[in-house]
Formats: sequence, structure tokens, C-alpha cells
Amino acid sequence: MKSEKISEAVVRRLPIYLRYLNELNKREVATVSSHELGQKLDLNPAQIRKDLAYFGDFGRKGIGYDVSYLIEKIRQILNLDQQINAVLVGAGNLGMALSNYNFYLKENMKIVAVFDSKPVKVGTHINTLTVQPMEELSETIQANKIRIGIITVPDFEAQNVADMLISSGIEAILNFAPTILKAPSHIRIHAADFTTDLLSLAYYLEDGKDEIIDDGQVK
Amino acid sequence: MKSEKISEAVVRRLPIYLRYLNELNKREVATVSSHELGQKLDLNPAQIRKDLAYFGDFGRKGIGYDVSYLIEKIRQILNLDQQINAVLVGAGNLGMALSNYNFYLKENMKIVAVFDSKPVKVGTHINTLTVQPMEELSETIQANKIRIGIITVPDFEAQNVADMLISSGIEAILNFAPTILKAPSHIRIHAADFTTDLLSLAYYLEDGKDEIIDDGQVK
Repeated sequence: MKSEKISEAVVRRLPIYLRYLNELNKREVATVSSHELGQKLDLNPAQIRKDLAYFGDFGRKGIGYDVSYLIEKIRQILNLDQQINAVLVGAGNLGMALSNYNFYLKENMKIVAVFDSKPVKVGTHINTLTVQPMEELSETIQANKIRIGIITVPDFEAQNVADMLISSGIEAILNFAPTILKAPSHIRIHAADFTTDLLSLAYYLEDGKDEIIDDGQVK
Repeated sequence: MKSEKISEAVVRRLPIYLRYLNELNKREVATVSSHELGQKLDLNPAQIRKDLAYFGDFGRKGIGYDVSYLIEKIRQILNLDQQINAVLVGAGNLGMALSNYNFYLKENMKIVAVFDSKPVKVGTHINTLTVQPMEELSETIQANKIRIGIITVPDFEAQNVADMLISSGIEAILNFAPTILKAPSHIRIHAADFTTDLLSLAYYLEDGKDEIIDDGQVK
């Protein structure tokens, strides 16, 4: 297990850095300053320097970061210097959409199998994958060294699916069901609830309360 | 515009607090301590107290937080004491899935219209909504006082859609396209890229590098 001292917020920013560094690399940009990174990613440069300093001394004063070296290092930190296989359970609209995202995952993380409990879904195709029945879950996870599970089933099925994934050897789960999952402490669970993103956006709206006039209409 | 001093990380935690407080309220729990909140939400109690203290003095020492009062206050802070209308552009798999999420959005945020540029999509139904053509976007946004836009189009269309949303009066955007959008500084944009969640999960895997043996296979 990795050191628990690095906060989740820091870890969650690493793929954001990685994505932009990959873009720079594609454009053959050799070095980048924390200031440029900050401008592009809407983050404080000091925050970026501090985040990266948790993992090593990657930057050089007055020059910045070597783009390909930093990509290599972040990949190592994120364990993405090896292929990580993921499984998705729940081949509804969201599951289909996420499986299609495989095209966008340029890193070493791949959804290699999709499962659904509904007979009508089993055997259908999502890109190159065929939806499998739940009975094959455990065997497939073990045979393909699958380490990450993605849950896109309805909330009332989510805990059951999580239990099956964990007993099959999954180490980490990304949960899209709007429910809090129980799991042993060595299993990492991230909730990917888009409602959180959406509701937090409302904070940044002009509150407009001053504009309410007597007839109850908003100007 | 709200004070910029509250960090986005704090704002993004408010809906998480709100969701759990709503659960407590449904179970008729009257008060909750930061310690209980922390245990349930996997956050440091001191962090929770600090987050909430940015907005006011809501807790009482030795008693905790009054659940319904805190719900009311967080709703006010997030502008969710009024109905906030949202529009979704891109009725593919992801768009369909997100529109279905309306069922889960118990707060005052509602997707009230769905748009797509493809003639084959226009006129189809997602729950109670009918997919509309892009030509009707601006008029619909203004007529329905829609303030938030959700982008679920492919990446090469995303900037064009963002520009249309902004010129129609949208104040904030949740972007699911895997691309960084340009917008005037008064428009708030959140990226909802699930790849970030997925890649950051890999950090928490046992790195297993010691287990690689000479034939290149992982035990």
C-alpha cells in the first residue's frame, strides 16, 4: 500500500497534469514552467510545485519541468508504467458511454470486459467487447488480472456488484451509482457522482436574489 | 459574483455534505457531529468543521450540527433554494445516461431541455424530454431561464457548443468532452472527465513491481 500521507486531492490532480503534459509532448514542447501549467489548468503555480514536490525534485529553477521526464515520473507514480485492466459492470447508457471512452484513454488503463445481469444485454457488442453474464465475472477477473472495477448499475444493485468484484480480487472501484458503498479498508472506492459536479456549479451562479420583484418573477 | 476566496475543493464538498444530510433528515436524525460526518464521508472532522466555518457558525460544541438547519444553509450557499434549470447538448449514450440522472437529482437542479445536431436524434424522447435541434438552443435557453449547460458532444464539437451556450446566456458549464474549453473569465467551467477519476485510482493499487519475474509475467 502506498503512503497515506499524500491527500486524495493531490493524487486526483496528477492525471490532469499528465493529460496536459501529453498534449505538450505531442506538440514537441520540451519544458514547461509551473506558471504556464497553472495558467492552462487554472491552478496556482505554487500549488502545482507543491503537488509535484511530494513525489520528488522534478523541476529546475528558471527552466521548469522537462516534459517527457515528468510524464514518465507521473506515470510511475500512478502505476501507469504497466497496463492496468479494468472491468465495467452495467451495460446501460452510462456503461456504454464509458466503454466508448476507451478510445480516449491513451494511458495504460483499459476496460477489457463488460458485464450485465440482464439476459437481453448479454452477447451484445460495445466496440470490440462482448457483454458477458455475471456468472463469468470472477473467472474473467482472475484470468485477465483485472484490478479495477467500474460500477454503472442502478443504486439498489451497486453494493451486491461491489461485493462480487471484491471477492473476485478487485483492488479499487469507481462507483457511478448514487449510493455510498461499504468495503473493507484495503479496497479503494472513488465515487464518480456527476450530481456533485453539477450541484457545486450552482455556487458560482450570480444568486440574483436582489432581482426578485414583487410579483415573484425574476427580471 | 461570489467571493473567490473559497476554494473549489471546498465548494465541491458541499453537495457531498448535502446528500448525506438529506439521508439523515429522511431517517429523522436531528443532529450530527463533524466526527460522524467524517466517519461516513471518509473525511477529517477538522476539515469538515473548517469547510462549514467559511460560510457561518453552524455547529454547537458538544452537540454538533442541526441537520435541517444545515441543509437549509448549504442549499442557500449553493443557490439551490431556487430552481436552477440546466440544458444538455449531445444526446448520445452519455447524454441519455445523464438525462436519466434527473431522477436522482432531488435538489432544485433540473435538466429541462436536451439538444443534438444530428437530425436522426431530433424528436426522440429521453424520459419526458424531446431532443431539440440546435437551431432552437438560444431561444429555449432564454425562454426557460436556463443557466447551466452540460456538454456531452464529441471533443471536436465541444468548443463550438460552448460558444453557442455562452452567447445564449449560460453562466456555467459542466463539460464531459475530453478537451479544455476556452471561455470568458465570468463563465465557470467544470471538467467532468471520468478518466481523471479512473487514472487516479491506479495510484492506490499495490504497485506489484517487485513481483515481476524474469519471463516478464506478473505472478
